[in-house]
This record gives sequence, C-alpha cells and structure tokens, in this order.
Amino acid sequence: METTLLLVLDLTGTFAFALNGGLTAVRAVRIDIVGVIALGMITAMGGGIIRDLILNTEPATFHDWRYLAAAGLGALIAFAFGHRMDRLWMPIEVLDAVGLSFFAVTGAMKAVGFGLGPAQAIILGTITAVGGGTVRDALLGRVPSVLSDGLYAVPAFIGALLAVAASLFGLYGPVTAVIAAGVCFLIRMLGIRFGWNAPVPRVWKHRESDSPSEE
Amino acid sequence: METTLLLVLDLTGTFAFALNGGLTAVRAVRIDIVGVIALGMITAMGGGIIRDLILNTEPATFHDWRYLAAAGLGALIAFAFGHRMDRLWMPIEVLDAVGLSFFAVTGAMKAVGFGLGPAQAIILGTITAVGGGTVRDALLGRVPSVLSDGLYAVPAFIGALLAVAASLFGLYGPVTAVIAAGVCFLIRMLGIRFGWNAPVPRVWKHRESDSPSEE
Amino acid sequence: METTLLLVLDLTGTFAFALNGGLTAVRAVRIDIVGVIALGMITAMGGGIIRDLILNTEPATFHDWRYLAAAGLGALIAFAFGHRMDRLWMPIEVLDAVGLSFFAVTGAMKAVGFGLGPAQAIILGTITAVGGGTVRDALLGRVPSVLSDGLYAVPAFIGALLAVAASLFGLYGPVTAVIAAGVCFLIRMLGIRFGWNAPVPRVWKHRESDSPSEE
Repeated sequence: METTLLLVLDLTGTFAFALNGGLTAVRAVRIDIVGVIALGMITAMGGGIIRDLILNTEPATFHDWRYLAAAGLGALIAFAFGHRMDRLWMPIEVLDAVGLSFFAVTGAMKAVGFGLGPAQAIILGTITAVGGGTVRDALLGRVPSVLSDGLYAVPAFIGALLAVAASLFGLYGPVTAVIAAGVCFLIRMLGIRFGWNAPVPRVWKHRESDSPSEE
Repeated sequence: METTLLLVLDLTGTFAFALNGGLTAVRAVRIDIVGVIALGMITAMGGGIIRDLILNTEPATFHDWRYLAAAGLGALIAFAFGHRMDRLWMPIEVLDAVGLSFFAVTGAMKAVGFGLGPAQAIILGTITAVGGGTVRDALLGRVPSVLSDGLYAVPAFIGALLAVAASLFGLYGPVTAVIAAGVCFLIRMLGIRFGWNAPVPRVWKHRESDSPSEE
Repeated sequence: METTLLLVLDLTGTFAFALNGGLTAVRAVRIDIVGVIALGMITAMGGGIIRDLILNTEPATFHDWRYLAAAGLGALIAFAFGHRMDRLWMPIEVLDAVGLSFFAVTGAMKAVGFGLGPAQAIILGTITAVGGGTVRDALLGRVPSVLSDGLYAVPAFIGALLAVAASLFGLYGPVTAVIAAGVCFLIRMLGIRFGWNAPVPRVWKHRESDSPSEE
C-alpha cells in the first residue's frame, strides 16, 4: 500500500509538471502541438533523466510507460485547454509544488542508493526537481526562471538536504520522507504567497536602485 | 551489399544534416568557423548521441570516424560555400528529408533492439531524427523550429511508428524499413511543398486572428 | 608529488572556470544566487561531465567533493564580490586560460585511455575545455561566445591535438603534457592580447562590409 501511495504521488507530480510546463511554454512563445507535448514532457521527465545520466544508469521513468502516459496526458491537456485554464492557476501551482517536493526527496535518495556522497545526493535531488523546467526554458530561448526569480531551487535543495540528513542518521523512512517533502512544499508555497526571492548579486541591486524603472 | 546500402544512406543523411545544419546556423547569426563546424556536426550527430545516452550505451556514430568525416565535410562545405548555395536549397532539403526518414526508422529500431517498449522506441526514433536540429537551435538562442513551424517531427514520428508496428508483427525487414522511411519522406516533402503546419494551441490562434499583423 | 601537482592544476582550473563563469553570468543577465552558483559550477564542470557522458562512464569530477568545493567556491566568490572584480579581469583571464589548457590536454588523454581514436580524443579534449561555457551561454539565452568570438576552441583543439600526437608516438608524459598545455595557453593569451578571431563565413563578411555599423 505504501508503494502504491509513493507511485501515485510520483505520477501526480509528473502529471502536474507536464501540465504546468506545457502551459508555461504555450504562454511564452508560439509553438505548435509538437512543441507543447515535447516541452511538457521534457519539463516532467527532464530532471530525472539528467539525474540518471549523471548516475550513469538507464533513465528509469522513460522506461516506465505509466510515467510517459502521465507526462503525455498533462502536456495534452495543456495543449487542448490551455486557453481557459487561467482560473486554475493556483491548483496547478500547488500540484507543481507537490511534484517539486517529491522529486527533490526521491531524487536525492536515489543518488544515496547509488552510493554518492551527501553533497552530490543533495545536488542531484535538486537537479531532479528543477532540471526539467530548466531545459524547457533553455529551449524557449529564455533564462530559466529557476536561475532568476522566486524560490524554486531553494526549497528543493532544503527538501533534499533534510532527506539526506535523515538517511545519514539512519532515520530515513516514509515519515521523514514526508517531513522533508512537506518542508519543501511549505517553503515553496510561502514563497509564492509572499513573493520571496533569493538574494541577487550586488551589481544588479545597484543597477536597479540607480534606475528603478529599468527592466 | 544490403549493409553497404544502409551505410551509404546513413552517411548521406549525416552529410545532409551537417550541411543543412551548418547553413541554417550561418544564416541565423554571426558565428565563426568554429561555430559552423560545431553546429553542423551537432545537427548531424546530436540526435543519435541523445538516443544512445538515453539507451545508456556508447554513442555509436561518434566512435565511427566515417560519421565524423561525413558530418565534418558537410559542415565545412556549409562554411566555405554557404554564401552561394541559395539556389541549391531544394536539393539540400531533399537530402535532409532523406536523413530525417532514415534516422527516424533506424533510431526506433535500435531502441527496439535494446528491448524498449513500442512507445519508447517511437519517441527515441523521433528524437534521433530531430534532436540534433533542436540542440543547434537552442545554441543559436532561438526556439527550435521543430517545436514551432512546419512538419518535421510529425513525419519522423509516423516513420518510426510504422517501423515499430512492422517489428511488432514480425514484419520488419529491408522492405518495410524502406516503406516506413518512404512514408516519412513523402509527408515531409508534401509538407514543404504545401506549407503544412501542425495544429497550434487555441490561445495563439486567438491572438493571431485578433491582430493578424502581429509577429 | 607529480600527482599532487596535477591535482592542484586541475582544481585551480576548476576554480577559475567557476569564477569566470559566474562573473560572466552575473554581468550578462539578472540572476539570483541560485543562478550564479549553478552557472558557475556548470561552467567549471559541464565540459568534463559531457565528455564522461559520451565516454559512457561516471562523471569523475562530480563524484569528487574537492572539485565540487573548488567550483562552488569560485561561483560563491563571483556572487559575493563580482561587483568589485573589474580590476581583476586580467588575472582571472589568465587563470581561465590555465583551466582551458589543462582541461583540453587531460580531457583528450582520458579519451585516449578509453580507447578512442585520435580524432575522437581531440574532439573530446576540446569539448572538455569549452563545453561548460557553452552550456552556460545556452542557459543565458545567447549564442555561446566560443562559437562566435575570439580564439577559445582553437587553442584547446591545438593543445588536445599535440597531446594526442605525442601519445601516438609514445611520447606522452608530464613534459609533453606541459608543452601541449603551454602551447594552448600561449595561443589563448596572444589571442586575447591581439584580438584574434577565427575566420568568419563569407556571407557575414559581405554583410559587415556593406553596413559596417550593423550588429
């Protein structure tokens, strides 16, 4: 039953990432159905694929048709109904944060399982969570939002850090996994609610205070 | 003899992809000889390398000097003679469509040979065909044309689908491979001739009908 | 002792790449601390990771915490002190050229050690040296400078070529490695000093002579 719950959460996250990724792509530039499906699926599966490439193992989700189906369905909905989903923005963000939290924790623990050190596992957990959106934005020809705005990588990093720390003390299990993912989810949601941002280099702070109307 | 024919077709496709990729890059932005050679070779070999990375195997074409030579030659011609090849646009498109068709079918069948399921094999065949051009466009800082304009991924997808379907029924062989590649080639050529496009999300149709002069 | 020297040079190059990469990113676009750290580390480690992916082996530097630490430290300094490092431009370029030279030679020799042919080894050495900066620029949404301006890939290519040639004649060792890296370093430095560029396709030469104020 526990495994079923994990699978459901994982597929939900994959679906939400594909939906959110497809909607982001549709709004950013003029692409066709190929672009929406491809970018939605890349958003959902790209992070895990990058993680597995660095672990030098077969991309697990790519080989499992259920992940392909969840990602494809999310992207297809973004294509077909994207023009009238503006009101659903908040539920989609919530689902996306579920995916972020879940991917960060499970990504980090997969790296731990492959024998990587704590720093590497935390980085790979974060990459699992944010890698897909980064590739999508690069393909859209724009600076990935994870590198510039809001709090997206930071909560994933903290979630992965908590999970890895728990495993270092032999405390990793369903309870600590949920706690780690929950902290990530909470920070992400608070960040959206209050418009939190990560610190910006001083050179840009100067430019912005010099000419506040810039950008 | 059959193997020789396959090799000749494969090297022809590689050459055409590099030539077309180099010409596209030269026309899009100001790059130097390093950029033309690199982007031409990436166009030709990128799709197969991505496929082999996902299959977690050594990139086959990269290890075979004949592919490197065919790709390098195509890119070098694009650098040296690109300024007077405008009249050769159609033959180059035809060769490029040969490469597209051939890569889609052989890419999908390589995935089948690695034991992947039909959906995965079709996706990997399509990635083999369009992946190189996608990376090239991303490096040029523009939305990959395969995601936005014309019919490029769709014929590759159909060609890969036909090859995988044939193999499911135990019918895959030189004849069905040529048929699958031929259907891909035909759709691609008809798409160029008649300016076919894949469906666009409704949100963009609205914007375009509202302000037809936009974009 | 020799091994220690190699390690010190390698870590110095990693640090310099991360510092230079982070500074380049900070100046190009408005990113936050996540972006500076991520892009600095990608600049430092991306080339080696791409090389190891193509060799179908585990990314070596990613598994070694000393490389992660050197890359992270360089990127962190770029974030914290980037606004007052303009005067340090030249020493940073020198360190970056050290990294370029060292990565080109060691990258090519790693490929030789994996049994690849000379052409493949030279290409992989060059990719090791320039791959990280290429990915960084792609994520910044701009044409990678290595494809368009100055001499960056060319000295790396020559350094890799010399190292591979030495190994073909059974002459590869600390002395020839330093000579190969030294030639790369010298060409890079001369290129900066005298503003050398690689040849540009004729189509762009025409455009520029027609309208010199363009671009």
